[in-house]
Amino acid sequence: METDWRRLLERDDIDVIDICTPGDTHAEIALAALEAGKHVLCEKPLANSVEEAEAMAAASEAARARGVRSMVGFTYRRVPAVAYARQLVAEGRIGRVLHVRGAYLQDWLTDPEAPLTWRLQKERAGSGALGDIGAHIVDLAQHVTGEALTGVSALTETFVRERPVSDPSLLGTSGISGTAASNGSTMRGPVTVDDAAVFVSRLSGGALATFEATRFATGRKNAIRLEINGTRGSLAFDFEDMNVLHVFDNEVPSRDAGFTRVLVTEADHPWVAAWWPPGHVLGYEHGFTHQAVDFLTAVAAGADPRPSFTDGLQVQRILSAVETSAEREGSWTPIDGARTTSPVLS
Amino acid sequence: METDWRRLLERDDIDVIDICTPGDTHAEIALAALEAGKHVLCEKPLANSVEEAEAMAAASEAARARGVRSMVGFTYRRVPAVAYARQLVAEGRIGRVLHVRGAYLQDWLTDPEAPLTWRLQKERAGSGALGDIGAHIVDLAQHVTGEALTGVSALTETFVRERPVSDPSLLGTSGISGTAASNGSTMRGPVTVDDAAVFVSRLSGGALATFEATRFATGRKNAIRLEINGTRGSLAFDFEDMNVLHVFDNEVPSRDAGFTRVLVTEADHPWVAAWWPPGHVLGYEHGFTHQAVDFLTAVAAGADPRPSFTDGLQVQRILSAVETSAEREGSWTPIDGARTTSPVLS
Amino acid sequence: METDWRRLLERDDIDVIDICTPGDTHAEIALAALEAGKHVLCEKPLANSVEEAEAMAAASEAARARGVRSMVGFTYRRVPAVAYARQLVAEGRIGRVLHVRGAYLQDWLTDPEAPLTWRLQKERAGSGALGDIGAHIVDLAQHVTGEALTGVSALTETFVRERPVSDPSLLGTSGISGTAASNGSTMRGPVTVDDAAVFVSRLSGGALATFEATRFATGRKNAIRLEINGTRGSLAFDFEDMNVLHVFDNEVPSRDAGFTRVLVTEADHPWVAAWWPPGHVLGYEHGFTHQAVDFLTAVAAGADPRPSFTDGLQVQRILSAVETSAEREGSWTPIDGARTTSPVLS
Amino acid sequence: METDWRRLLERDDIDVIDICTPGDTHAEIALAALEAGKHVLCEKPLANSVEEAEAMAAASEAARARGVRSMVGFTYRRVPAVAYARQLVAEGRIGRVLHVRGAYLQDWLTDPEAPLTWRLQKERAGSGALGDIGAHIVDLAQHVTGEALTGVSALTETFVRERPVSDPSLLGTSGISGTAASNGSTMRGPVTVDDAAVFVSRLSGGALATFEATRFATGRKNAIRLEINGTRGSLAFDFEDMNVLHVFDNEVPSRDAGFTRVLVTEADHPWVAAWWPPGHVLGYEHGFTHQAVDFLTAVAAGADPRPSFTDGLQVQRILSAVETSAEREGSWTPIDGARTTSPVLS
Repeated sequence: METDWRRLLERDDIDVIDICTPGDTHAEIALAALEAGKHVLCEKPLANSVEEAEAMAAASEAARARGVRSMVGFTYRRVPAVAYARQLVAEGRIGRVLHVRGAYLQDWLTDPEAPLTWRLQKERAGSGALGDIGAHIVDLAQHVTGEALTGVSALTETFVRERPVSDPSLLGTSGISGTAASNGSTMRGPVTVDDAAVFVSRLSGGALATFEATRFATGRKNAIRLEINGTRGSLAFDFEDMNVLHVFDNEVPSRDAGFTRVLVTEADHPWVAAWWPPGHVLGYEHGFTHQAVDFLTAVAAGADPRPSFTDGLQVQRILSAVETSAEREGSWTPIDGARTTSPVLS
Repeated sequence: METDWRRLLERDDIDVIDICTPGDTHAEIALAALEAGKHVLCEKPLANSVEEAEAMAAASEAARARGVRSMVGFTYRRVPAVAYARQLVAEGRIGRVLHVRGAYLQDWLTDPEAPLTWRLQKERAGSGALGDIGAHIVDLAQHVTGEALTGVSALTETFVRERPVSDPSLLGTSGISGTAASNGSTMRGPVTVDDAAVFVSRLSGGALATFEATRFATGRKNAIRLEINGTRGSLAFDFEDMNVLHVFDNEVPSRDAGFTRVLVTEADHPWVAAWWPPGHVLGYEHGFTHQAVDFLTAVAAGADPRPSFTDGLQVQRILSAVETSAEREGSWTPIDGARTTSPVLS
Repeated sequence: METDWRRLLERDDIDVIDICTPGDTHAEIALAALEAGKHVLCEKPLANSVEEAEAMAAASEAARARGVRSMVGFTYRRVPAVAYARQLVAEGRIGRVLHVRGAYLQDWLTDPEAPLTWRLQKERAGSGALGDIGAHIVDLAQHVTGEALTGVSALTETFVRERPVSDPSLLGTSGISGTAASNGSTMRGPVTVDDAAVFVSRLSGGALATFEATRFATGRKNAIRLEINGTRGSLAFDFEDMNVLHVFDNEVPSRDAGFTRVLVTEADHPWVAAWWPPGHVLGYEHGFTHQAVDFLTAVAAGADPRPSFTDGLQVQRILSAVETSAEREGSWTPIDGARTTSPVLS
Repeated sequence: METDWRRLLERDDIDVIDICTPGDTHAEIALAALEAGKHVLCEKPLANSVEEAEAMAAASEAARARGVRSMVGFTYRRVPAVAYARQLVAEGRIGRVLHVRGAYLQDWLTDPEAPLTWRLQKERAGSGALGDIGAHIVDLAQHVTGEALTGVSALTETFVRERPVSDPSLLGTSGISGTAASNGSTMRGPVTVDDAAVFVSRLSGGALATFEATRFATGRKNAIRLEINGTRGSLAFDFEDMNVLHVFDNEVPSRDAGFTRVLVTEADHPWVAAWWPPGHVLGYEHGFTHQAVDFLTAVAAGADPRPSFTDGLQVQRILSAVETSAEREGSWTPIDGARTTSPVLS
């Protein structure tokens, strides 16, 4: 394993550089990688400042002329339901966009004792909820509508302005002077980024929009919500139910109209043909992974994994009883060996 | 790649046999594999008949004495929300089980022109919806409650009794005589398994239960539903929303009681600590996979992948405008280069 | 007020008799009322036995010849979403019915200390959950599909077989001999009806069906659920969300298909034109009723009701600030007199 | 019936004046009514301008000293789920409020050919979506949190600026000069109010908030949405599901935490004890009203209402068959007179 990115750029067997480091290092690595002729996939947000991002975009254009490719990692564009939403807008199914409602809600900072990390320091992260998750919801809104935001009226807030420093060296390396906390010896350092941002906007086609990015929406773990209303129809998405897009078609007669819950797991949905049968949502495969883990762990430990063949036999007996009962017009067919306890509640 | 399972049993570098073949071959392979000292993971249902399953369970017990492990693949037990449901029952949070509602609903056979396959032939598949998907919902009900079904009253139905044969050789190999279809030259063969099964049951603790397995529930693609009502609480699960378990606690005062929608993505949920942060549902990772596919496909094709660094720059400009607007108490801050079209609808 | 129903039958100014008494009195009252030439609306179930119901149906037919009308109160037929469901089936939108899933789930008897009432005595109520709520779900299934149940395979259970008697005279009047309870002096009497019933069935068109009626589904207060799958489409209803019908159209291409959540509040839905504007769900009017109660109660008590005109003025100031801010391109516009506390969390 | 409000003020048998006229008449009527010693309930928004509202609030204060009461009709405060939400905040269950998300979404103006009415004319209505429905969501946010908005950054838009005039006299009476429409002879008049408004805000306790009021959210008929996130918990309400409040308790351990769907139909919820049993949602009563309408309409028309006693008898036969089958351990029990058609699909 190589931990020095500069060495990677020198290697001929490396074609692609995937930049997943904190935002303050994106520009330097990307510029060097493109210069070295590597294709670059850079995590979002592209950089910590517009100036850095401009330099990166310019370098990207120059590299492109030499056949070197680059891309920024707004990953949620690749959720099938999101890509399907974009298709619908592009096909004119929504008509002209009138309203956009975008929100990216998390809650992992609601606890004021959650520790200070690089994500809460302006020097490293650039901004807080705004750049980390606000960038995603802004990108999604533009990607799905095919329009651009033309301006904003915004408010931001830092609800917790000092946090405990679990790693005292963090204070030194980041040049922040910690302060002695009231609760004894715990060091505390300042939060220098936003905890939450809200803004209204107009899109290039005239739509009104509201946006929100926060790490303080108690109870919302990773709620990426996007709603779009247009003259011909509407869309609604929530990442907490990532395999679903809700679609309203305004041309259906009022009696029968409503939001259709499309389970985006059909073979004709983006990327899905490479995955599972209809209805076997993305995530289905984890059952098999967990099963393999449990089976192999048991084998390695010399223990018996469950469900055993005896468990399988018992289910088989039930299936057989179902068939027998059905053949006898539904008559009660006991399962071999099973008994019912008295159901009476005392 | 080896296509003859018998050769696999002879190899010393093979420790585990995973049986994913049609049900009529399970017993033969499993018995031979256990005999050969291989650990066996066998797809469900265990076998096509109780007799085969009994032989397999006996062989499994014998092998176990020699340290050879076996397991049957009721994969849905390994969905975190299901495992969490079982935990709650085991902890007494549901109290005594009074009702179970189990259903496994698919719709891929609703079209009478869907072709005949081995899954529709009793010789290969043993049964239809009953064994293929009914086995899962029965296993889940027993696994989560920790109780056994004690008997059943059942009805089954085959709604479509002849289907087109896309592969004529299928008729020969399976010994089924096809009949000339009314619509010209298409061969048709008989469906010899159930399309759907419904049954009522009593569990060992006295609960009343309803079960349903069907491939004709139009619009339901893979709806695995399990509801349990007990004296102290209730549970509800639907695989279409696989990361969620709904839990009712009967000891909460009536004013505040209701089903709690637990997003089973916390580190303290089964298996989840090995995966993503809270709220990043199982399936989250697919966005990255799709992103890699699109990026590498573009690189290989010499095309430009999107979102480009220029796209990233434009988002950066928006983030910057949000910060500027927030610093100026929400005043309108235009995004560089963006213009709004007149919003007026004609 | 008249408490003797026989006297009502003698009055000329009474045209209609609405029978809302326990089931064991339905037949006698209905027969007498029809005989007296009164139109009769009888609460469900029609009677406590098939024999009584037959006599009532015969009397109803005879009265009809004389222009005397009768009706049984399966009220849920008159929920707009249910009537709309029936329309869709009648129009062929569901095609041939393949599956019906009916359940009526309540939980008010889960507590074993809930007292004995006439509804739990076979002599008065005829049956328990089966007749009280099972009758509704059976009627709805037949009403919506336009088909009849042709037979059943059923299980019933009485989970709590003795309950405390809050009104000792109840034991006497109903001829039930109470037993001394273990917990001191509380009298207990036997529950003589079912607490829950589950059954499978076939409809006249060949569909398979499951039904359930229970007062022990902890957490489900009045969940009347009806799902219908047909060859062309599907329907799903739950009374807990009474203004909504979910409709699946199997003729929509797979990419765009899904269950449409129809909010049954449009003027072209049954009965709705006489009520509120779209989206103003049934129940909307209660806000006004509660408002009138609170207003008049305050007036009567010589107290000041809220929201006051001053509250209204404060909202007016906000509306005015919104307009001012919008005129100034989103610039921050303070609300007269309002101040923000420091948001910092300690 | 009296159509001149001034005459009502002169009558001694009138104690209460309920003002439901367009906004430009509120102040005059309210001032006169209070002067006349009538208790006043005034529809929202209180007035069309801050000046009028100030005069009304002052008059209300003066009248109050004389025992004359007044109230403004923010009716949605009286929805039980909203009142319950306010209780929870007041009890400290949400902790300190951090975020508010308010939206009132309708779509009845999306069609550009919807006619011009007084609600779209600034002279009569004061404002558009902002005053008509924005006033409600602002009031709800303040009522539930117990905090005040301290300022706003807002954008508004009028998407359709001219609409057809169905009633030409409207142009005259309101002093608006119509213009000849492009499509022949239809007169068109200007829309002089906002179609939609979006704004961000800070509450008095420091929370960030987003608000939206629109009549162009295609597919949303009357979606009044309010979400509140606090340090101890969160709330979510949507009027489309008016009997439900979603509540998150941040003090529950992460494994078991989630939004609880409280069905606000228990006797200990505000106003509910005066209505129906648990789970019988507000709106339940409409089934009975519709039933009475249908029954009486049939009686008046000399027609036979359904369900008939014969329908009731058939259900009774099913209930009887269920009991018989249950007594015989689930054996198939046919319903008298019913037959199953062959289920085979061609």
